[in-house]
Amino acid sequence: MKAIQLKNGFGFEELTITELDIPTPGPKEVLIRMRAASLNYRDLVVLSGLMPIEVKFPFIPLSDGAGEIVAVGQGVTRFQVGHRVAGNFQQRFIAGSPRPGVLEESLGGPLNGIAAEYVVLHEDGVVPIPDHLTYEEASTLPIAALTAWSMLIEYGGLQAGDTVLLQGTGGVSIFGLQFSLMAGARAIITSSSNAKLERAKALGAWQTINYSEAPDWDKAALELTGCGVDHVLDVGGAATMGKSINALRTGGTLSMVGFLSGLTIPEYDVSSILQKAATVRGSQVGNRDHFEKMNRAIAHHRLHPVIDHVFPLARIGEAFALLAEGKQYFGKIVVQI
Amino acid sequence: MKAIQLKNGFGFEELTITELDIPTPGPKEVLIRMRAASLNYRDLVVLSGLMPIEVKFPFIPLSDGAGEIVAVGQGVTRFQVGHRVAGNFQQRFIAGSPRPGVLEESLGGPLNGIAAEYVVLHEDGVVPIPDHLTYEEASTLPIAALTAWSMLIEYGGLQAGDTVLLQGTGGVSIFGLQFSLMAGARAIITSSSNAKLERAKALGAWQTINYSEAPDWDKAALELTGCGVDHVLDVGGAATMGKSINALRTGGTLSMVGFLSGLTIPEYDVSSILQKAATVRGSQVGNRDHFEKMNRAIAHHRLHPVIDHVFPLARIGEAFALLAEGKQYFGKIVVQI
Amino acid sequence: MKAIQLKNGFGFEELTITELDIPTPGPKEVLIRMRAASLNYRDLVVLSGLMPIEVKFPFIPLSDGAGEIVAVGQGVTRFQVGHRVAGNFQQRFIAGSPRPGVLEESLGGPLNGIAAEYVVLHEDGVVPIPDHLTYEEASTLPIAALTAWSMLIEYGGLQAGDTVLLQGTGGVSIFGLQFSLMAGARAIITSSSNAKLERAKALGAWQTINYSEAPDWDKAALELTGCGVDHVLDVGGAATMGKSINALRTGGTLSMVGFLSGLTIPEYDVSSILQKAATVRGSQVGNRDHFEKMNRAIAHHRLHPVIDHVFPLARIGEAFALLAEGKQYFGKIVVQI
Amino acid sequence: MKAIQLKNGFGFEELTITELDIPTPGPKEVLIRMRAASLNYRDLVVLSGLMPIEVKFPFIPLSDGAGEIVAVGQGVTRFQVGHRVAGNFQQRFIAGSPRPGVLEESLGGPLNGIAAEYVVLHEDGVVPIPDHLTYEEASTLPIAALTAWSMLIEYGGLQAGDTVLLQGTGGVSIFGLQFSLMAGARAIITSSSNAKLERAKALGAWQTINYSEAPDWDKAALELTGCGVDHVLDVGGAATMGKSINALRTGGTLSMVGFLSGLTIPEYDVSSILQKAATVRGSQVGNRDHFEKMNRAIAHHRLHPVIDHVFPLARIGEAFALLAEGKQYFGKIVVQI
Repeated sequence: MKAIQLKNGFGFEELTITELDIPTPGPKEVLIRMRAASLNYRDLVVLSGLMPIEVKFPFIPLSDGAGEIVAVGQGVTRFQVGHRVAGNFQQRFIAGSPRPGVLEESLGGPLNGIAAEYVVLHEDGVVPIPDHLTYEEASTLPIAALTAWSMLIEYGGLQAGDTVLLQGTGGVSIFGLQFSLMAGARAIITSSSNAKLERAKALGAWQTINYSEAPDWDKAALELTGCGVDHVLDVGGAATMGKSINALRTGGTLSMVGFLSGLTIPEYDVSSILQKAATVRGSQVGNRDHFEKMNRAIAHHRLHPVIDHVFPLARIGEAFALLAEGKQYFGKIVVQI
Repeated sequence: MKAIQLKNGFGFEELTITELDIPTPGPKEVLIRMRAASLNYRDLVVLSGLMPIEVKFPFIPLSDGAGEIVAVGQGVTRFQVGHRVAGNFQQRFIAGSPRPGVLEESLGGPLNGIAAEYVVLHEDGVVPIPDHLTYEEASTLPIAALTAWSMLIEYGGLQAGDTVLLQGTGGVSIFGLQFSLMAGARAIITSSSNAKLERAKALGAWQTINYSEAPDWDKAALELTGCGVDHVLDVGGAATMGKSINALRTGGTLSMVGFLSGLTIPEYDVSSILQKAATVRGSQVGNRDHFEKMNRAIAHHRLHPVIDHVFPLARIGEAFALLAEGKQYFGKIVVQI
Repeated sequence: MKAIQLKNGFGFEELTITELDIPTPGPKEVLIRMRAASLNYRDLVVLSGLMPIEVKFPFIPLSDGAGEIVAVGQGVTRFQVGHRVAGNFQQRFIAGSPRPGVLEESLGGPLNGIAAEYVVLHEDGVVPIPDHLTYEEASTLPIAALTAWSMLIEYGGLQAGDTVLLQGTGGVSIFGLQFSLMAGARAIITSSSNAKLERAKALGAWQTINYSEAPDWDKAALELTGCGVDHVLDVGGAATMGKSINALRTGGTLSMVGFLSGLTIPEYDVSSILQKAATVRGSQVGNRDHFEKMNRAIAHHRLHPVIDHVFPLARIGEAFALLAEGKQYFGKIVVQI
Repeated sequence: MKAIQLKNGFGFEELTITELDIPTPGPKEVLIRMRAASLNYRDLVVLSGLMPIEVKFPFIPLSDGAGEIVAVGQGVTRFQVGHRVAGNFQQRFIAGSPRPGVLEESLGGPLNGIAAEYVVLHEDGVVPIPDHLTYEEASTLPIAALTAWSMLIEYGGLQAGDTVLLQGTGGVSIFGLQFSLMAGARAIITSSSNAKLERAKALGAWQTINYSEAPDWDKAALELTGCGVDHVLDVGGAATMGKSINALRTGGTLSMVGFLSGLTIPEYDVSSILQKAATVRGSQVGNRDHFEKMNRAIAHHRLHPVIDHVFPLARIGEAFALLAEGKQYFGKIVVQI
């Protein structure tokens, strides 16, 4: 079978397509014929070697994928051959609160990822995907969709009538937009591109802010809402956290789900957290229960993930280049396997 | 001013329209020119003298109304003349959990109600109404809408993807349908009338059950969902509670919001609560914070309450007769003042 | 090895001690040398054939036991030989909310139970026990302790300063007393025996009510508290549910955890649930996460379960007779294996 | 009557004792004969003019005090003359979530404070104090105790068996210790003084860390617990926030309640919030409902606040000097009025 591997170390130049034996599922394991993978910003960080994790080389990257079960090991009860599935990013995070170590056992680093034609996973780390989705669409769910779902719906307790602020038009933010609308909230979305803001509006965004034209987008959000937004899904990290808190209403919530602008804030002033009585919550992506509840909602609403571009596996380098460039895509970037 | 009163005692025959002096707002009070009132099943119970409350005669009935502030007393800070408002059913239930006695201080019994051209209320017991609603529409919010909102959204924690079962097409159930859809849930609605079920479907119901044709509507709900519904908004009381629990998924919630079929269950078997690990929650209508959050959601979605019929005040007897008959209306019955 | 079995059908007369082969743990399974089992009222119902479950004969009864791991199957990661453990009653209820079917897969019916010298369980259905407990003490945790913990602490959200009402001095109620005190709540306990009430007081009960002397114990509870109790742990079922709700404060919680007095209420009046705006919650015993959190709390506080009597396995009939008699014990009845 | 005032501007040198007329309670207001006030770090910030609030001079400082009601205005229903009470810091924060503006209306800036023999407050901003407390003891409740209670118990959902880390031995931390123990949690406390750590241990602390001897107290906390603490009550602000998050278990909570070490963090790295999937929550002190629930718990447990020193009003300067010095006290500093 074909697989993507980092042979000897990190670095994009180390990415190669190799030929490996098809693995065999052990007890309680399933063999999945992966059909599509989607890229996350995390993959860039892992590949570059900047993620504080240890992996064994040769290493198969990528966290998010979907495919079909083609064989089951001894004692498997959750699945049968033919089921359409996706892997859960954190393989052992089944339900409830994260136990020590559970958040660390994630696909695509430190565990081998899913960038291969065939992948073996424990049946407990796999979920069925909604019938109405293609494999390409379903491949976007494990990190990007589940992060937005968990932080807004499960931990954030978003209610109908709330206002959510979303940053940019990457995968998490667009899922954040779709889930906010699904839950009866209204959404403000920011971007530096008016064209993208128009697309966001077509998807149902209530208001848009071009942060190139309005660098004080936090004040713009306060003006639009009168008292501040209920929830910010912060994908920016260092450069946005301060303004994200400013944009909140008293008692609002900032979900920290990304760090596109870096991790280090020079001269961070903690007083805004106090003045807003804000809650700042670091993302834990989400457990399998949440994944399955999210899929149920996606199925009921026949929601389709927004895919910017689909690449064949051989052109995965171009896919990463598009992701790394950062400004050119809207939604998710997917690779067919 | 004109007002409806029970002069000397309970009974529909005691209902009269009288002429009273316009009251004067004291400190922290506001004077409201009531424009519309809506009827609730509770009003029937109060008027018939069957509600276990004590009132002083002459007594002004009706709990739910909307109007315009025409004068404010000393020290009022929440409102100005000209504001469009509704009274909160439980006048002192501001926020948080109900304190002892708070649920009992309700308009339309034991406190005087709002069936008068002018009503004085403490400013803390009044909320602004959404701009896009007529007074007739806004008059339906205090009990019917807030009950559905509180039990589903605030206490029930309804999530996108959940399934809700609604009983009949009265005011609470139709608001339950509208709020379920708003929050991304799907709704099953029951009725004995296929015509009403068609209307419910037109409003967005996912599935309908004609309980005359399918008396085992609980089993029908289990079949439709596979594992049971997440939430039942039970308006029936004695005759429906058992089946409502049967219709739940394991760990589901029954919100008990009415007792149209009576209060006494002969031979009630508690085992279903245990087998389903169900949560049964008695309605507390809702506090002012929830009322204001509900209004915010109604405003964002430009939702319009469903009104079956509007009567002039002089024909309030006909309005009550329609309510008492029970089977002929869809949504709310409103009286203009 | 020795095991207790029902050879051909239900009935206490069918209980026999037989000799079986020691089982072998498969993949992900552990072999436990059971040292002690504790009895629950549920065991009586199962043995009598009244529980609505299907079992295969010969059937090994009893749900709750503790012992030592003596062998592990392939791929076991949670345990090693020598670990001291207990089985989780609901073998697949790991965390979060119960999924369909999960509450039904319970030890001691329909699954074979733990009344045997050696038992094989999946490692996911096993938890470590606190170091300071004997096997006899630890054998009381799976149903009795976890039921009290889950309903009061996890689902009930008991807070310091709350008041809890406990019924009788059986295992669940005495754990309820101990956990209430641990969490800073105060406890009222009822019994028909002043001697037992004295023992409860010695354990820290705030107030006691002899329900033989004060049959209206609900009114007694209202008087003691002024406004009603925050939480009732109802073990009585049919005969107590009504009074339990009466004893609540407005907005209080009744946890339904037993049915010692039966399951059918003649003429049940639902109005008290409405008047109290009560929450009634059916027990789901509890998931493994809660079990482990409970054990952590038990370990921090060096809490010891209250054991009424320990019988050798050969005298299990006497143990059941003591349980069935119902009035003679205080805390838990344990059998050594 | 005597009162403390800032005549013309901020600054400790502006503090004077003046003679004013006794104020008269208006409608819904009560007149309190203040008997004791307690000092908070916030008072130092207000007096120095560094708090971003606007006040009118002459200004009466101090937020926290207790006394006796000596007169009631028209329409007061919550209190009678003779009741022993404390003011609620945020006068209009009654229950539920904070509404816009509510957190800002606080005693001791921007509103006039309670450093006067007689103070008039709206009855909604006043709570009864536990019978077993002296006025000196009760004066410590409004900010210090309520902050610890709200963040740990109400918002933090502290459970029996949890571990809490407390910083230093000031008022909030010592209340945090007492409430943690009351709720069945165990507490780690830090200080630079072994003598204070001994006192904390005598109060029931599970472990102590001398942060002068162990500057990496976060690592010490990780070692003591194995997996990190469940909750940190952070009073340090800028200098402690990073280590506080490091000390958490995965999914733990940091409550930010003070900023004794300043507000600005040079080079703040947000990655720990993500790695720990931490929740960081800014304090909102607490609403009146929480205050009353806290008082109920304090009364049930007959808990006594820890007072370091009581000064007569004439020596308030010394009281502030002790507070400002920062290292010499244990618990609260109180001034008799």
